[in-house]
Amino acid sequence: MATDREPATAAAAPPSFPRPSPVGRPWHVAIVPDSFKGSASAVQVARAIEEGVTAAAHARGVSLRVSTIPFADGGEGTLTTLLDAWGRPPIEVETVDALGRPTIGLVGISRDGAIGVVETAQSNGLPLVSDVPLQPLRAGSAGVGALVRTVLDAGVQEVLVCLGGSATSDGGTGMLSELGAQLRDSDGQVLPPGGAALRELATLDLSGLDPRARRVRWRVACDVTNPLSGPTGAAAVFGPQKGADPADVEVIDQGLRRLATVLHQVTSRDVGSAAGMGAAGGFPAVLTAVLDAELVPGGELVAQVLGAKPVLEAADLVITGEGRFDLQSLDGKVVDTVRRLTPPDTPVVVLAGEVALDPQTWLDRGITAAFSLAPGPRTLAELQTDVEAHLRAVATSVAHLTLS
Amino acid sequence: MATDREPATAAAAPPSFPRPSPVGRPWHVAIVPDSFKGSASAVQVARAIEEGVTAAAHARGVSLRVSTIPFADGGEGTLTTLLDAWGRPPIEVETVDALGRPTIGLVGISRDGAIGVVETAQSNGLPLVSDVPLQPLRAGSAGVGALVRTVLDAGVQEVLVCLGGSATSDGGTGMLSELGAQLRDSDGQVLPPGGAALRELATLDLSGLDPRARRVRWRVACDVTNPLSGPTGAAAVFGPQKGADPADVEVIDQGLRRLATVLHQVTSRDVGSAAGMGAAGGFPAVLTAVLDAELVPGGELVAQVLGAKPVLEAADLVITGEGRFDLQSLDGKVVDTVRRLTPPDTPVVVLAGEVALDPQTWLDRGITAAFSLAPGPRTLAELQTDVEAHLRAVATSVAHLTLS
Repeated sequence: MATDREPATAAAAPPSFPRPSPVGRPWHVAIVPDSFKGSASAVQVARAIEEGVTAAAHARGVSLRVSTIPFADGGEGTLTTLLDAWGRPPIEVETVDALGRPTIGLVGISRDGAIGVVETAQSNGLPLVSDVPLQPLRAGSAGVGALVRTVLDAGVQEVLVCLGGSATSDGGTGMLSELGAQLRDSDGQVLPPGGAALRELATLDLSGLDPRARRVRWRVACDVTNPLSGPTGAAAVFGPQKGADPADVEVIDQGLRRLATVLHQVTSRDVGSAAGMGAAGGFPAVLTAVLDAELVPGGELVAQVLGAKPVLEAADLVITGEGRFDLQSLDGKVVDTVRRLTPPDTPVVVLAGEVALDPQTWLDRGITAAFSLAPGPRTLAELQTDVEAHLRAVATSVAHLTLS
Repeated sequence: MATDREPATAAAAPPSFPRPSPVGRPWHVAIVPDSFKGSASAVQVARAIEEGVTAAAHARGVSLRVSTIPFADGGEGTLTTLLDAWGRPPIEVETVDALGRPTIGLVGISRDGAIGVVETAQSNGLPLVSDVPLQPLRAGSAGVGALVRTVLDAGVQEVLVCLGGSATSDGGTGMLSELGAQLRDSDGQVLPPGGAALRELATLDLSGLDPRARRVRWRVACDVTNPLSGPTGAAAVFGPQKGADPADVEVIDQGLRRLATVLHQVTSRDVGSAAGMGAAGGFPAVLTAVLDAELVPGGELVAQVLGAKPVLEAADLVITGEGRFDLQSLDGKVVDTVRRLTPPDTPVVVLAGEVALDPQTWLDRGITAAFSLAPGPRTLAELQTDVEAHLRAVATSVAHLTLS
């Protein structure tokens, strides 16, 4: 959701070299930053940069149009940024964590009520179960079902799912059960939660599935290309960080393979080898096979939801940023997304707490410039106490130099 | 002394906004930094910035002309920077410190042999006498005379004197004696060294003065406006940092007043109340009255000697810098000088270890942009170990953004 402002300003600056083109319209700056994790929200970052840009335009006497789009990469924190961008409060949901213990999770609804945002880690996140030993075999995603039901109750036309940070490897079956599906073994017994039990999966009965779940559109933010199972699958790659030892990995992998087989039988959709199905413990598997979800790169999805592309296409200068500008930034994260959606001739400047790349790396990727907000020698704690003032100062320099 | 290079490069970059003017000539960047004290010489700083600018121009396919002028403000360190700029080694001189103890001081001669550079602190500097209690009353500048004689022996046509950091308050009389003048009391006794003895000054005999000293041109780098004596004079303002207590200040002030009176009698020049005569313990007094020296703001003088003005007038972008960009920078230091000598429409960008000014302050003074070289949270020691790499990176961003 872009916020546009056109302050009344004076005439254009005297010519210089390079000079602004005589475009006969205000100079248009798009400000599209990620949050600076632990320091400032994307909205705070965007506002500080806007203040710097405005000061620079004022100093040059240049008429200015600013579009601010607080941005996110589709992973953890995306819910907060989308709600900030929409100016909406989060909704608290009584749900359960990955071990079935009561917890409160947050969901969001867009300003127009059309989109519900479910961040799976709000119920099945690793941090919520960090107080007990990890239980990779039986951790389940039932709590996500309660989050989904809340946005369905609100009447949304679309559910946007953000993955990442999950403690579960159940292929999303916990959520599916919570929404009314029945997963049974060959004796007709309902399966217990978790990825291990999926080895016994014999029948999947979708007749009781909440009909609203099949009516709405599903989009899933997914930057992972791992398949559901196998040596690069959910269990092998992400299982260990959820506490799975090699034997557990094999057990879960067998469960997810069995899930793919049954999903194929029931839905005719083959999710066994497709890229991305291995994200968040195989969560996309049931979303795709049963609910016809579309997997979209996270930054791209956020851009779609917030209408970033037309803004980036119209801008004369784009300023983005994130806490740490590194190789990950250029691989599906906010900076990468912003650069790809911006026309090649439009400069894209990165402001970051830490610029951890050498210039040739970002030059090769089409980034115009990268500046740290550090004004000199500072500890991390010192920098964090004054992120917004530092951002304002660097943004002033960036905008004023661009106009000079 | 500007160093120009025109690397062979490809065609101009595709148009963007703002875009480089179709000037039909290479993009001309002037790099005119101070040293980063304790971290990198002005030559090292200039070279690192040049590498960054070159990388950016190469990435944009823009034909580039770079002029590098390692710069200084006329104070301590100016000798080193001038010699670096000239590509000349310093000359070691056996001289004495402010207390008359043997020491080695450095002087410099320009590449064409016409200019000798004498930095007074090379013999009368405070650091050279830091091993013993300060002796403000008797500290003397005789050692500067030996430095001057060395450059006169080399046949220079001009002596350029850099002040600052002196331990002495003798109005430059020690140097004058060393060059052959005789200062006596009313009994005809030669005065001992130091400012206190000047109270007894009765006669100044210039007949024995080295005739070469009166033939050459003298220019003195001086940014101080304090007069020789009185409440804002050399003793009152600078005496305490040289160890003078209030009683000492009064004694020295009397001595300098007496010196002004005698200089007026002998040379008809009145240096008693003129601005700047209070610099470096009154050093400009004898230089002006006896040797007809011209006081020039330090940065201005360095600019004259290195031929900076025509380069700055021809540049499309000027990059300067110093270790700490603060209010002093805008008051006669390198950044201020560079900005004043550069046409108002030409952008001047400051790169610094520490940017200690808020943007409005430097915007008001015509600075285009100011960036720290810090790439993120770092201690001072961490920053100092890699100043050149950090400068290169920031300069790449500055140049590439300007071209975009």
